[in-house]
Parts: sequence; C-alpha cells; structure tokens
Amino acid sequence: MSETDTVSANGQAPSPRTRVRRIAERAHYERDTLYAILDAAYVCHVAFADEHGVHCIPTACWREGDHLYIHGSNGSRMLRLAAEGAQVCVTVMHLDGLVLARSAFHHSMNYRSAMIYGAFEVVGADRKAAALDAFLNHIAAGRAHEVRAGNRNELAATTVLRLPLDEAVAKIRTGGPKDDEEDLDRPVWAGVLPLALQPFAPEPDGAQPEGAVPDYVTAWARRVGSAGR
Amino acid sequence: MSETDTVSANGQAPSPRTRVRRIAERAHYERDTLYAILDAAYVCHVAFADEHGVHCIPTACWREGDHLYIHGSNGSRMLRLAAEGAQVCVTVMHLDGLVLARSAFHHSMNYRSAMIYGAFEVVGADRKAAALDAFLNHIAAGRAHEVRAGNRNELAATTVLRLPLDEAVAKIRTGGPKDDEEDLDRPVWAGVLPLALQPFAPEPDGAQPEGAVPDYVTAWARRVGSAGR
Repeated sequence: MSETDTVSANGQAPSPRTRVRRIAERAHYERDTLYAILDAAYVCHVAFADEHGVHCIPTACWREGDHLYIHGSNGSRMLRLAAEGAQVCVTVMHLDGLVLARSAFHHSMNYRSAMIYGAFEVVGADRKAAALDAFLNHIAAGRAHEVRAGNRNELAATTVLRLPLDEAVAKIRTGGPKDDEEDLDRPVWAGVLPLALQPFAPEPDGAQPEGAVPDYVTAWARRVGSAGR
Repeated sequence: MSETDTVSANGQAPSPRTRVRRIAERAHYERDTLYAILDAAYVCHVAFADEHGVHCIPTACWREGDHLYIHGSNGSRMLRLAAEGAQVCVTVMHLDGLVLARSAFHHSMNYRSAMIYGAFEVVGADRKAAALDAFLNHIAAGRAHEVRAGNRNELAATTVLRLPLDEAVAKIRTGGPKDDEEDLDRPVWAGVLPLALQPFAPEPDGAQPEGAVPDYVTAWARRVGSAGR
C-alpha cells in the first residue's frame, strides 16, 4: 500500500467490496485521485451498525498520508463504537452538477466520490494534539498555531480516530448527458447545470483583534462571488 | 403521522434511534424543518448492511409528501436490498460554514442535517412514471413535460423506492463560535467562513433547440456569482 501509485498495486479494486459493478468505467483506484477527493472535503459520512441497526453520521474529516481522520467527543456513540474496531464504510461526495439529458432516463449528476471500508484505529494520546493541529490547518492553513491549544482536559475528552485508505475506491462522473442517438434532435435544452460548494463573505464574531486579518480569511473573502472555475 | 406538525406528535424524538444525545439542543423534530432540509437536497447518503458489512451510498433523492424517494437501476445492489425491505439510515447534510473559535477545542461547523431510519417501500409500476416526473421537476421545475418520457423498457429497468419520514430527526447548527469566556480577548480572528452549494454557468450540450431557453436555465444563470444570501 505504501510504495505504489494505486490503492491496489495493479490498479484494480483492492477488495470485492470496492469493485464498482454499476457503470464500472466511473471507478478509479489511483491514489492521487482518491487523495484529491478526500482533501477537497470538510465532511464525510460514516456508516456503521450497532444493536439498533445501521447509522449514517456526517462528521468532519481530514487526510494525513494514507489515513482519513475523524474526531469527536468521547461521549459520541459513533466514536465509541468506531474506537472499538467496528467495521465502517466512510463516504465522501462532491456534487459537481446536474446533467440534463434529452430523455428522462438519461438524466444524471456529475460528482466525485470516495468510499472507504475498514475499521478505525485510535490515535494515541502522544499523537492526538498533532492530529488535531492537522485538522485545524486543513480548515484554515496555519490556524493551529494562532488559537489557544487544547488543554489537558479538552484533549482527554476528545477521541481521534483514523481509517487506513487500503480498501478504497473513487467514483467520478464528468461531462454532458449521454443521450440516445435518436433523441439528439429533440427540441429540449440539454447540458449541465454545474454546482460547487462556494465561500461566502467571512462573518467575524464579536470584537476582533487589531492588526492583520489572517491570510486564510482574506483568501476566502477574495474567492467570494468568483463564479469562474 | 399525517395530521400533526411534528414528525412525532409531541415534538419529541419519534424513536430511541432518533433521540439526539450529543448536543441535544441542535435536534429538531418539526415536520417543516425536516422538509426544508430534504427539499434543499439533490443527494442523500443511504447506509445499509449486507453480508459484506455496512455500505454508505450517495444517491439522488427527492421528497413528496411524507416520503423521501430514490431511484436507480434494477441492477443496483443497494436498490435490490432496499426493495427487499432492508433497514436503512438515510442522511442528508448541507454544510453551511466553518466555525473558527478562539480555542482549538471550540472549532465547529454550521450545518443542516436530516437522518431518517426505516425501510424503503417499492413504488409500483402504476405510480413509477409520476414519481420520476416529480424527480425531474425537483431538479428543474417543469422539465418532466419537455423531455422524452421514459419508454416501457426504461421504466421497467428502473426501481423507484420511497422511505416514510416517520422516524426522522433534523440536526442544525447555526451562528458563531461558542468560546470560553476567558478566551474572548485572545488576539486571533474568530467567526464563520460560510459555505453553500452554488450554481455555475450552464453548459449547453451540443446543438441546442432554437427559441427560448427554459426558465430554470435562465434562473440558474442569473444566480451565478450572486454571493449575497
């Protein structure tokens, strides 16, 4: 897993669970593709099962190396179960657009998604603070060293987990509609209505310190309303 | 379930599975809140289990009345299992912003999410076309009557499922960071970096019909780059 460019050494699905059956040409097993999808995400969905059935919980995530990380309160049922080694499926999805075809049947969506199977590992106390710093820096580069660091109680109350990216698959759809030949002349608009998660103007909270606004805030403000991609 | 304003008649969690334990003040059981979150979504995540473990699959969704609908190919494993009555957890989540607090510990995210537990029902052949029309009109109002309708083969190849909204909960966070009193004077930017899924310029596919562009396309184009909310 660590020296190849693909999640599986031969570019194929690393397990039966990650072999994409429906529209298999949308499947990708290259590591760079997987990383790019994960790194563009703030949130993943974690599916797991307990005695009440299956659950699907959205939670913040970040990637470091070959692991996807999540964190939360020790009191979280999901974190507790995941820390005990429960099998999970974690999904990240970016919706990139609505694909409007000339027939009802061929309507679709453009997206980049990643699905990871496995079991989380607990990040030990010695590496917890560093992992949470990486999370803050994923949210806002450099922020980990600006804020008050977690104190002993806060760190002790927080569980950090990481999921190896061994059993993972990305699935991507791009481009316009795939209409049937005989529908191409139909008098109906066809194409893509693109979508993307976009920044809006920063909203400062209460009194702000004098001096420079951090780079990640000014960069965020600069991106607002820039509809070109 | 059909005559009250709340998912549960008394405004409480309709089941133990939907009782929010962590930060319970973020939980909402009102029907209008749930509907608004679902109606703003193009995509949900469906968690289910089979002999290989749990899975978490993103898929298109739409709401009609007291049900959330999904659809797909009869060949889909998820659709097949769901059609057989597998217990599922379906989650919709809108990420509304990153919440930057003055301490690492109090960083958070703003979001609106909905979680629904239950089992899907198969939408019968007699109501399948109407349900898929509703989906197209959710994507682009009025489009169902512009495109070529599904033919017999296409409809037969498509499974439409609906999940009752009986056992559902919404969870919402809004507003700025909740810092500890003693951190309020720290010299660090604090506030919200808002996010929203936004439209980009429509991308017509190939030759387009002469005459008027549909309202949903012009309305989409008008919204591009309008960063005010």
